Amino acid sequence: MRSKGFDGMICSIAGVMAAIGDRWGLLILRDLVLGLSRYEHFRHSTGVTHATLSDRLKHLEANELIERRRYQTNPERFEYLLTKKGWQISAVLPVLAQIGDRANVSGASAPPLKFVNRKTDADVAWGFFDTKTGEQLGVKDLAIKEGPGADEMVRWRLSHGAHRHEP
Amino acid sequence: MRSKGFDGMICSIAGVMAAIGDRWGLLILRDLVLGLSRYEHFRHSTGVTHATLSDRLKHLEANELIERRRYQTNPERFEYLLTKKGWQISAVLPVLAQIGDRANVSGASAPPLKFVNRKTDADVAWGFFDTKTGEQLGVKDLAIKEGPGADEMVRWRLSHGAHRHEP
Repeated sequence: MRSKGFDGMICSIAGVMAAIGDRWGLLILRDLVLGLSRYEHFRHSTGVTHATLSDRLKHLEANELIERRRYQTNPERFEYLLTKKGWQISAVLPVLAQIGDRANVSGASAPPLKFVNRKTDADVAWGFFDTKTGEQLGVKDLAIKEGPGADEMVRWRLSHGAHRHEP
Repeated sequence: MRSKGFDGMICSIAGVMAAIGDRWGLLILRDLVLGLSRYEHFRHSTGVTHATLSDRLKHLEANELIERRRYQTNPERFEYLLTKKGWQISAVLPVLAQIGDRANVSGASAPPLKFVNRKTDADVAWGFFDTKTGEQLGVKDLAIKEGPGADEMVRWRLSHGAHRHEP
């Protein structure tokens, strides 16, 4: 899982996945966004083993997505909170949830969760937009180009994908 | 990786991750969005072993995110294409890329990729918006509620997360 090639790759997508660890890490972030913060709650929510949960929490902490805080002494008890970076990365979760709803992969026949504007209670959606005109765009309206941080491999991918199949 | 609990969970986020398989599956989707379609190109791009690549391609195909198509006979050669469902799910990739750019986890000091409007060449960003007013929102403006597909566990998570920490 922490295989070599992955972490050395110049790629923001790979970088996010490396920071999260795996899909158990992603579900822990989901639970934190939902407001859970305690080890036993993560256990109940995910059904994961102690060994895996403990490993993934350590991984998220080492990658500065969460922090561990003592909320009680005698006996000592700890809770886990999202850091600023953790919140930044967790912004992908409502996107994933809505994509999963549309692709009908939730295991239910309707969306398990609903995202609303905290102030107005209106439904919230996400989308791509043109930063100049504000026009809303679909994924097939996007072209992908070399950014300032591209390395040889990024350029190789783009040049070999030049004649890509349209959606 | 295809552990039990995961696939039985009522959750669109878990459902998307189960369909993708793992982060290698995600990188194959990335490469397909970039326009790569051949086994050898995925190998070169990801550096993954034959066994893993072949397994993940089969997994993506079984989950109907990609299809395998013969493009040459004698010798037979195959390429891989995103299905409609594959494109739907791959819409998360530009989001992940931009989140990774902002969280500075790409491995480079600047974005490796740039997403532009295919028609106007203007930069593309993504965001949440209020579906009534069109107002743009940040992740901390979102409240999460029970959807029509919620099960007991979803309700349990929401009730235990009621006093969640704000970003």
